[in-house]
Amino acid sequence: MAEGASQDLLLAAAFVSDAQYNRNIPFRTSPEAVRLYYLYNHWIMRTVTYFFIFLNLSLAVFEEPAVYPLPFLVTSLIEVLCLLVFFGRLTHFAKVTLRNVFWKDTKNICIMVAILLSLTDLAIYGVLRMYNMRSIRWSRIVRPIFLINFAESRQIRRAFRSIRNTLPEITYVFLLFMFSLLMFSLMALKLFGERNLQTAEGLPYFKNYLEIVFDLYVLVTTANSPDVMMPAFDFSSWYALFFIAFVIVNTYIFMSLFLAVVYNNYKKHLKNEIRKLAYMKHRKMIEAFNLLKEEEGAQFVVREARWKQLVKLVAPDISNSHRELLLCISDNEQKGFIDKKSFVQLADLLNIQVITLKIRSHPLGQWMPRVYKSAVSRFLRSMVRHRGFVWTYDVIILINAIFIALDEETPYISYAEWVFLALYIIEILLKVYTYEPRAFFGKNQFWNWFDTLIIFAALTATVLNTTLKSTTKYNSQQILDIVFILRVLRLIRIVDSIQRFRVIMNTLINIVPTMLTFGGLTLVVYCVFAIIGMELFHGKIQFFPASSNVPYALECGNPALKDSLFARGKYCKNNFNNFASSFIVLMELTVVNQWHVFANGFANVTVQPAKLYFIAFHIVMVIIIVNIFVSFILEAFFVEYSLEKSEVETAIEQKIQELGMGVQEDELQHEQLLDNMESAEHDLEGEGGTKPQSKGLVFKIASKPTSSPLFCLGPSVHACLH
Amino acid sequence: MAEGASQDLLLAAAFVSDAQYNRNIPFRTSPEAVRLYYLYNHWIMRTVTYFFIFLNLSLAVFEEPAVYPLPFLVTSLIEVLCLLVFFGRLTHFAKVTLRNVFWKDTKNICIMVAILLSLTDLAIYGVLRMYNMRSIRWSRIVRPIFLINFAESRQIRRAFRSIRNTLPEITYVFLLFMFSLLMFSLMALKLFGERNLQTAEGLPYFKNYLEIVFDLYVLVTTANSPDVMMPAFDFSSWYALFFIAFVIVNTYIFMSLFLAVVYNNYKKHLKNEIRKLAYMKHRKMIEAFNLLKEEEGAQFVVREARWKQLVKLVAPDISNSHRELLLCISDNEQKGFIDKKSFVQLADLLNIQVITLKIRSHPLGQWMPRVYKSAVSRFLRSMVRHRGFVWTYDVIILINAIFIALDEETPYISYAEWVFLALYIIEILLKVYTYEPRAFFGKNQFWNWFDTLIIFAALTATVLNTTLKSTTKYNSQQILDIVFILRVLRLIRIVDSIQRFRVIMNTLINIVPTMLTFGGLTLVVYCVFAIIGMELFHGKIQFFPASSNVPYALECGNPALKDSLFARGKYCKNNFNNFASSFIVLMELTVVNQWHVFANGFANVTVQPAKLYFIAFHIVMVIIIVNIFVSFILEAFFVEYSLEKSEVETAIEQKIQELGMGVQEDELQHEQLLDNMESAEHDLEGEGGTKPQSKGLVFKIASKPTSSPLFCLGPSVHACLH
Repeated sequence: MAEGASQDLLLAAAFVSDAQYNRNIPFRTSPEAVRLYYLYNHWIMRTVTYFFIFLNLSLAVFEEPAVYPLPFLVTSLIEVLCLLVFFGRLTHFAKVTLRNVFWKDTKNICIMVAILLSLTDLAIYGVLRMYNMRSIRWSRIVRPIFLINFAESRQIRRAFRSIRNTLPEITYVFLLFMFSLLMFSLMALKLFGERNLQTAEGLPYFKNYLEIVFDLYVLVTTANSPDVMMPAFDFSSWYALFFIAFVIVNTYIFMSLFLAVVYNNYKKHLKNEIRKLAYMKHRKMIEAFNLLKEEEGAQFVVREARWKQLVKLVAPDISNSHRELLLCISDNEQKGFIDKKSFVQLADLLNIQVITLKIRSHPLGQWMPRVYKSAVSRFLRSMVRHRGFVWTYDVIILINAIFIALDEETPYISYAEWVFLALYIIEILLKVYTYEPRAFFGKNQFWNWFDTLIIFAALTATVLNTTLKSTTKYNSQQILDIVFILRVLRLIRIVDSIQRFRVIMNTLINIVPTMLTFGGLTLVVYCVFAIIGMELFHGKIQFFPASSNVPYALECGNPALKDSLFARGKYCKNNFNNFASSFIVLMELTVVNQWHVFANGFANVTVQPAKLYFIAFHIVMVIIIVNIFVSFILEAFFVEYSLEKSEVETAIEQKIQELGMGVQEDELQHEQLLDNMESAEHDLEGEGGTKPQSKGLVFKIASKPTSSPLFCLGPSVHACLH
Repeated sequence: MAEGASQDLLLAAAFVSDAQYNRNIPFRTSPEAVRLYYLYNHWIMRTVTYFFIFLNLSLAVFEEPAVYPLPFLVTSLIEVLCLLVFFGRLTHFAKVTLRNVFWKDTKNICIMVAILLSLTDLAIYGVLRMYNMRSIRWSRIVRPIFLINFAESRQIRRAFRSIRNTLPEITYVFLLFMFSLLMFSLMALKLFGERNLQTAEGLPYFKNYLEIVFDLYVLVTTANSPDVMMPAFDFSSWYALFFIAFVIVNTYIFMSLFLAVVYNNYKKHLKNEIRKLAYMKHRKMIEAFNLLKEEEGAQFVVREARWKQLVKLVAPDISNSHRELLLCISDNEQKGFIDKKSFVQLADLLNIQVITLKIRSHPLGQWMPRVYKSAVSRFLRSMVRHRGFVWTYDVIILINAIFIALDEETPYISYAEWVFLALYIIEILLKVYTYEPRAFFGKNQFWNWFDTLIIFAALTATVLNTTLKSTTKYNSQQILDIVFILRVLRLIRIVDSIQRFRVIMNTLINIVPTMLTFGGLTLVVYCVFAIIGMELFHGKIQFFPASSNVPYALECGNPALKDSLFARGKYCKNNFNNFASSFIVLMELTVVNQWHVFANGFANVTVQPAKLYFIAFHIVMVIIIVNIFVSFILEAFFVEYSLEKSEVETAIEQKIQELGMGVQEDELQHEQLLDNMESAEHDLEGEGGTKPQSKGLVFKIASKPTSSPLFCLGPSVHACLH
C-alpha cells in the first residue's frame, strides 16, 4: 500500500502522524527527506537510541569506582560507540530537518557540545592514565544531557522547562525563607548561646552561628525534630514556644508555600504547553489537508479513497472496522468526502484508543461444538460466570494469606502451597474456557494479564526451586525470595473484587506512564549528584561485615567517625563508593529522615563545607522535584475526579451511540461486558441464530477505564460500516 | 438614631447584617425578639462567650494533673460557672430563634447534652472524691464541643463539616493503603524473618508480623527511614529494592493521594458552601427589601432616606463619606431611590473594606505653621521622603544585624545597642513629622504599626532591664530574652523594602485570619488527645534535672525504659504529666519525626496496644488535618495569585474611578501615596490655595493590598457626595 502512495500522500501522512504524536519537526519536503523522516521516527531507531542512552548512563556502574569493574579500554570503547550512535542520530536528524532550523535549536548544539566534551575528556584521561597520573572524569556529569536532549524524551524536557519557569518565583520564596531561617538562628544564638547547654551527645549546644543555621535548616525538614529542642526544653519549658513558632512558620507555612508556588506554575505552564501544542497540531493538519484537497462544489475537500489511504499509512495497525468508524464520524453525512473541519479532527480521533472487540463464539465452541455445548459444560460456564465464583476465590485468597503468614517449615503448609497454586491455575483455565480467550487477554484487561503472569511465574519459580532442592539439596536464596514475593503479590487480586478500590487502582495505573517522566527526571538528578558524590566522598567510608576485625570496623574504617551518630546508627554501608551505593544514599536523602546524620558524617570524614552538597541535594530534589511530583499527582487525580471528557471523545461516543444501540450505553464492568457478550451469543444459540448479530462489534473508548461507557454496534451500524 | 427607628427598619437591619456576616439564624420578628437578637450578636456578648469557652478549656491546666494546681473546689466552681454561662447563652438563643428551628438544630442538642454530661460527671467525681475513691474525669473530653458548637465559631464548624464530608472518600484510600501496608509486611516477614538479623540496638529484626506492620507504618511517615532498612541492606544490597519500592508506593504515591483526596473534597465543599451562602444572603436581602420597599412608578424601591437610616443602623462606624460613596454606587443615576437589584448588593458592598483617607495638612503645620514650613523643616521632610532615607535605614539594619551576632560582653557593643535604638526612634519620629500621623497609623498600615510597637517594646524592655541591673545587680532572664527577641524582630523590617518580598508577606498576612480556624481545629484535636493521653500515661515517665540522684533518673524514673531509644534520646521531659507538657508532646508528634520512639517508649511503660493512641493521633492530625491545612494554603495562594476581583469590588472600583480623577488610578505604594498627598498639599501651598482640594478624599479598597488601585476623589465626586 505504501509503495503505491504518491509523494503528496506520504508527506500528508507525515504531517498527520506529527500532529498525532505532538512532534514538532519541520522536516524537508523532498521525497528522500520524507523517507528519511519515516525512518527517523521508526520505533526500532528510537528503541536503539534509548538503548544507547541508557548504556551510556549505566557505564558509571562499570567505570571506576565500579560495582562490576571492567577494564578502562572496554568502557571507553563502549562510550565512544555510544557517542558515535548519538552523532549518527544527530546527523540523521540534520538530514531530515531544514538547515537553519537545525542550527537554531539549542538541543542540537547541546548534544554536539556534550559529544565533544566527552571525547576530549576521554582522550585527556586516557593519556594521563598512560603516564599513571590520576585525573577526574568530569565529563561524566554531562551524560544525562543525552537523555534530556534527544527528541524522544520530550516529556522530560517539558518537565525541565517547567522547573526552569518555576525558578524565579521559587527563588523569591526561598530567599524569604532563608531570611526567616537566619533571623530565627540569630534569635536562637542570643537565647541559648550563653546558657552552656549540651546536646544529648554532650556537644556544646547552639554556640556557633553557622551550625545553628544548619541545625535549624534540618529542623525545617523535621529530621532532627525533638532532639534539637530537648536541651533548651529541659532548661525551661517556655523555650518550647520558640521551636513551635519556628516549625509553624518554616515547616508548615513556608514548605506549603513552596508546594503552592510549584503547583501554581506547573498548572500555568501545562496550560500554555497544551495551548501551543493544539495550535501546532492544527497547523500541521491544515498543511496535510492542503496537500490532499480537491475541489468539490464551492469548497475544498478530501475524498474518501484518499482519506482511507492516508489513515492506512498513518495508522497501519488499526482494524478495518475501527477505520470505518472513524470515517463514519468524519464523513458524518456519508457524502463520500471529508471537509476541512472534520479532517483537522483526524489527529485527535486517531489518538483515542478505540478497542474493537469482536463478539465471536468461543473457539472451543467451534472446534468441539458438541462437548462445549453439553449440559455439563454449560453448567460449568454458568458457574464460573456466577458472582459466587468470585467470592469463593476471594475466600481462597484470604485463607492463602493466612497460610503465607504461618511458618512453612511444617510439611502440611508447604503442601498447601501446591494446592493453592493448583486452585489458581484452575481458576484461570476455567475463565479462559468460559470467556473468549482473545477478549480475556484483551489489550486493556490489565488484571487478567497480571493474574496470569504472576501465577505462571510463581509456578515456574516453585518448580525450579523444588527441582534444585531435590537435586542439589540446596535452596537458592534468590529463587526462594522471588517465590515469596510472587506468592504475596497474588493476594493483590482481592483489591479488584471491590468496586471502590478498583476505581482508585485504575486511576493509579492510568498515571503510571506519566510517572515514568518523573523517573527520568529523578534519574538525571541522581546521576549528576551520584557522580559528584563519588568524586567527593569515594572511599572515605567503608563497610565491613560484623565479623570483620579490621581496625575501626565499627567506625566505618575511619577514626574521624568515632562516637558520631553515623557510626552509632551503623550506616557504614551508606557510602559513595560506587554508583549503586550512591543511588541508594541519594534515595535515603530524598526520603529526608536522618539526612543530617549523613551530612555530618560525610563532613566529618572530609571537610565541613561538604554539608553544602547535602543541602543542595535537598533543595533540588525535595523542594523542587518532589513538589513537582506531588503537583503532578494532585493534577492527575483532579482530572480523573472531574471525569470530563474531551470534546473529541464526546464526539466519538455520540457517534457510536447514534450508530449503535442503546443497550449497553450504561457503564459496565469488564467482566460484565464479557458476560453480556457471552449471554448475547447464548441467547442467539437458543433462538437458533435468527439475528445476524453473531459477528457484532463492540467498541470501547480505552483512555478512561473507570468512566468510559461501552458501546455495542448492532445492525444499524452496518449500514454505515457497509 | 436607633431610638427613632421603626420596627421594620430594625428588622431589616438585622436581615442585612445577617447577610453581611453570613449568619443564618431564623430569628423571630417580634420587637422584643429583634432587640434580643441585636443583644445576642453584640460583640461584648460574643467576647464573653469566647472568654468562658477558653476558660473552660484552660481548666485542664489547673485540674489534676495540673501545671498550676488549684483546689478541686475552685476548678469545679469555675466549671459550673462556665456551664451556667453556656446555658444562659443557649437560652438567649432559644428566645431569639423560632422554637421548632431551635430543637431541630443538632448543635443546640449537642451543647445541652455536653452541659448535662459535664454536670453529671462533676457530681459523680465530687461524691467519689469525698469517699476518697479515684475516678476518671471522662467528661473533660466533651469540653471542645463548646468551642465547636457555639454559633460564633462558624469557621471551625465548617472545617469539621469539610472533614466529615471527606471521610468516606479518605476511608477507601486508607483501606487500600492499609492493604498495601499489610502486603508489604507479609513480604518483609517472608524475606527477612528467617535471616536472624539484628537491629542496630541488637534486637531481633522483622520477626513478629504486628511489629513489622508498625515498623513499616513508621517508615511511611519516614520517621525511621534508613534505620529500618540497614540490617537487611547490610545483609544484601538487593534488599534495598524492597524498601525503595515500599517508599515509592506508600510514602510518595499514597501520601500524595491523601492530599489529593483531601484537597479535592475541600475545594468541592468550599464551592458548595459558597453557593449556599450566596443563596442565603440573597434571600435575606430580599426580605429586608420587602420590609422597606415603597412604590415608585411601576416598581418597588427603597428611598434614599430610609436607606441611609438602614446603613447607619447596620454599620454605625463607617464614615459619612464612605456612606455617600455607597449611596452613589447603589443609586447610580441619582434618582433619590434604590431599586431591588442595587439594594441586594448592599451586604457585599458593606463587606468591602473601603478606607477613607482624608487629605489633610499635618497637625504641626496647623499649630506652628511658621516652624513647620521653614526651610530647614522642608529640607528635613524632603530628605525623609527621599529613597535614600529608606536605603540608609536598610544599611543601618544590616549593621545592626552584625552587631547582634557579635558577642555583647564588650562594652562598646552594648553601647551600640543604645545607638541603634535611638536611630530607630528618630526614624519613627521623622516619619511622623513628615507624613500625616493619622495616615501613618492608618488601619492598614501594618508595617508602620509593627515597627512602632516593636521599637517601643524594645525601648521599654531595655530600660527596664538596665534599671533592674543597676539597682539589684541582677539580670532578669525573662526580660533579657524578650529584649533579644525584640531586637531580632526589628530586622524583619528589611523585608518590606523589597517589592517581591512585600507581595509574598502581604499574602501571608492576609491568610492569617483564616489560619486561625486551623488553630481552633488543632486546639480541639489537641485537647481531646491531651486529656486521653493524661489518663493513659500520667506519671509513667518523669523528668529529673541532670544533677538529680533519683534512682533511674536517666531512664526517666522508670526501669522499663532502660536502654530504650526514648531514654537514650533524653526525651524524659516529653511526657503527659500535665496539660502543657501533653500539648508539647502532641506538637512533636504532629511534626512526625521520632514519633515511633515516643510510641515505643510509652508502650514500654504501659502496654503494647498504647501504640494505637499514637497511630490514631498520626492519622487524625497528620493525614487529615495537616493535609487540610496544606489544601487551605494552596487554595489561598491560588486565589491570591489569580488576582481576580469579585464582581462587587470591581463595581466599587469602577464607580470610584468614574467619580474620581484618573490621576492615581495606577497602582501606588503606600509611601508613594503618602508622598503624593503631601506634595499635592505642597503645591497647593505654593500656589496660594487656589484649588479647593485640601479636604479631598482618598478611597482605597483594603482587602487586597497588593493589587488594589488607590483612588482619589477630586472635585467631581463632590457633586455626588454633595
